[in-house]
Parts: sequence; C-alpha cells; structure tokens
Amino acid sequence: MKMLSIVLLGSGNVAGHIFKAISKTKGAKVIQVYGRDTSKLRDFEEHTQITTDYNAILEADIYIIAVKDAAIQKVSEYLGDKKGLVVHTSGSASIDVLKSERKGVFYPLQSFTKDRDINFKTIPICLESENLKDLEILETLAKQLSDSVHLIDSEERKTLHLAAVFVNNFTNHLFYIADEICNQNELDFKILKPLVEETINKTRFLSPKEAQTGPARRNDIETMQRHLEDLKNTTHKKIYQVLSESIKTTYEKEL
Amino acid sequence: MKMLSIVLLGSGNVAGHIFKAISKTKGAKVIQVYGRDTSKLRDFEEHTQITTDYNAILEADIYIIAVKDAAIQKVSEYLGDKKGLVVHTSGSASIDVLKSERKGVFYPLQSFTKDRDINFKTIPICLESENLKDLEILETLAKQLSDSVHLIDSEERKTLHLAAVFVNNFTNHLFYIADEICNQNELDFKILKPLVEETINKTRFLSPKEAQTGPARRNDIETMQRHLEDLKNTTHKKIYQVLSESIKTTYEKEL
Repeated sequence: MKMLSIVLLGSGNVAGHIFKAISKTKGAKVIQVYGRDTSKLRDFEEHTQITTDYNAILEADIYIIAVKDAAIQKVSEYLGDKKGLVVHTSGSASIDVLKSERKGVFYPLQSFTKDRDINFKTIPICLESENLKDLEILETLAKQLSDSVHLIDSEERKTLHLAAVFVNNFTNHLFYIADEICNQNELDFKILKPLVEETINKTRFLSPKEAQTGPARRNDIETMQRHLEDLKNTTHKKIYQVLSESIKTTYEKEL
Repeated sequence: MKMLSIVLLGSGNVAGHIFKAISKTKGAKVIQVYGRDTSKLRDFEEHTQITTDYNAILEADIYIIAVKDAAIQKVSEYLGDKKGLVVHTSGSASIDVLKSERKGVFYPLQSFTKDRDINFKTIPICLESENLKDLEILETLAKQLSDSVHLIDSEERKTLHLAAVFVNNFTNHLFYIADEICNQNELDFKILKPLVEETINKTRFLSPKEAQTGPARRNDIETMQRHLEDLKNTTHKKIYQVLSESIKTTYEKEL
C-alpha cells in the first residue's frame, strides 16, 4: 500500500488532533501544515514542514481543511490548481463549499479539547465524496485512524451535527446551570458527578425514552412549581419550563 | 457495635436498591418491609418479613420511608407511636412532613432504575436530622452503605435536587430529542455515543463553563439559523432557541 501524503490546512484544535492521530499511523503522513499564524504552527514545526504562504503548499494525495466553517471556501480556493483530493472536516458545511476539482468530507464526530488526549480509534468518522475512487482513498485513511468509519451524505451529516448540538453543547450548558445553582448555594457541583455518570451509563442499556425520570415525567406539578419558585435566574426558569413542558408532552399519553 | 434494625416502608425502585445495599452490610439488617401492594412485596419476601398491615409494623431502630413524596406524610403517621428514628429518602420533601417524634432524612442522590445493579458505595448520601444523636445513628448506617456521606440541611437538599433535575432529567430529555432527530432521518443514535461519553469525561477535568463549545458559544448565527430551519418539531425549535440564547448570554462578554 502506498503511503498517503497529506497536507493539513489549519492549526486549531481539530487540526491538532487529526495531526496527532495521523502521526500514529503507518500508511499516512502529514507532509506539511499550512496556517495563517506562525505562532499557532509552532506545535507542528518540530514534526513536519510548516508554511504560512499558500503559494508554497506542496503537492499531496489529500488536503485536509480543518478551519472554521466560514473560512473553508477561501482556503479551498488556494487549492484550485491541485490534483489531490480536498476535504473539509465540518459537521455542517456542505461538500459544495469546496472550490477544488476533487472534493470530499472527513468529519470526526467528536468534541475536541486542546491539550486533552483522546482515543481516536473510537471516534466515528463520517466520509463523503463525489466518486467511488475518492471515497476509497478517504476510507483507507479513515480506517487507519478509527474503528468507526461511516459513509454519510451532506444531509445526514447536517442532521448528525444538529443532534450533536443537543447531546453535547446543550447538555454541557445544563451542567453549567447546575453548577451555577450549586455555587449560589455554596454547594459543590462534585456531589452531582455520580448522577451525571449514571445518566450516561443508562444510555448503554436503555433508550433515552425509557430512561426518563423526574417530576415532569410523572407530572408532579407541586415539585415543578416549587422548583420554579426556587430558581432565581429568569433564563434558568425559562429553560426549566420549556424542557419540563416538552417532557410532559412526550409522556402524557402514558400517565 | 450493635446491629441496627431497620423497617423499610415502600416497595418501589428506591426501596429495592436500599434493601439490596443494606443486605450487603454487616451492621444493619432490614427486619421488615411494609407496602400496600402484596404483589410488589414479592421480591422482598424471600429475604425478610413483609406486611401490608400498618398495625403490624415491628419495632426498629430506623424506619426508612421510600415512597413518593405525596405519600410520605401519610406513611409517617402510621409510625406516630414508634420510638425509632423515622427518615424519608426524598430530595425535595422537607423533614417536617414527617409526623413522628424522631425524624431525619436519608437521601441517596442518584437516579435508580429497576433491575439495574448500581454500586451504592459511590452514591452520595445526604443526611439530616434534628439532633446530634440521631444524626450519628444515620451516619453509622450511611457509612456502611456509601463512601460519600454528607450532612445536608433541607434547603441545601432542595437545591441539590433542583440541580439534579438539570443534570439528569433534562440531560436525558436532550438525548431523547437527539434520538428523535436521528430516527426521523433514519440515522442510528449509537453513532453519537462516543460524543456523549466525551461530554461527560470532560466534566472530570474542565468546569462546564470552560468545556462549552458549539455554534451558540461562538455566536455562529448562520449555523444556528440553519439548525432552526432544519428542526421540524416546534418544541425542539423552542428548546434550541432558549438554550442557545442562554449560552450566548453566558459567553457574549468574552467574544
């Protein structure tokens, strides 16, 4: 098998994690990292060639664009004359924002944090391209990085990204609110950690619909009213109301 | 150390889990389980005495009432003439709903599921009572069941219960919505599981405030607008709006 040569465009979180993951494979190599900001390229510099000049971008089998959605199109324009396959890593951008000849998507469905090592093998990688040959190339790369590789078109990918906002971004914000509620009353959020763990553990053997408990689920109006009185923050009150209402509606036929 | 004798009142989830946990200790024993419904007492029958007649309730050191909030007061009235310590297991009911002479609270801060074994040792147990002597008795029991025992008054306990609704009930409902979004588009919710795991893993080393990511956090109006268009369900739209707005407000000073 031929070694795949890769140019990575971007120097943020996602770029960093993809770089690390590729470094561990035998069948692919990042031959260059392009970024606008030299200071952000320093972490890559010890391991590969770096450049801030798009005219200096090397020829490669795959160009992976890992920049924020709004910048994908512009970066892909630098690659207009390249023969290699150009992919972006976004959950919500369409494949068509890419202005290269050969295009695809390489979307790792995970929430990356700087300086936190993560096992790439378990991260679902969602692939898309316009022809079978390019898809095979992407699959060759993806399967070296992860045990969970999926062919997902742009519509499906947008759906997954939307669902991901609910399970990751919104869930995390609920933790933040719980943290705030605890702090305001001089309680330590840590005491809730085992409950947080169990909330997730349950998803392993119960559907979220079956796992639901709490005052809204059993339509315990008295408790919900008291909770609303105890919540001092107007936004928290509103979130409590909207979510409780939604839970009630989901289960009211069963009560 | 004298063996603590315990009568358990209730036959649901919480009662079942407490029963199992006490069975594993050496310093306490459930000598009787009281419940209204014989069929629900069957699981206990092989291991201890059961009764449906409140006039037949035995003398014990501790009476643990594990029934739904609305029934606590009534059940505690059956125990008006008992000398033992009477506690309930509720997160939101006040200690004062108990109509016995000696009273307390024994609140395991966890979401219990029937037929699912759980490691009681890691469950925070929140204790409250009206005098030091009774508190010591509760502590003796609690420390045999769990490594995480806390003295928490009624106000603090209500706060924790409210925060628990956010981290457990509401989080689970977000998973349900994500599941729905996936199903409507014939995608498998399972593909989101690694993301769910990582959402929780992050809470181990980052505060929820630091861990926040996503379109609302970076005020990515275009993506949020597209998500709202893609959401067909009015309630899901409303939840998306309220939570995104709250995230935006939390971070807008930092952008």
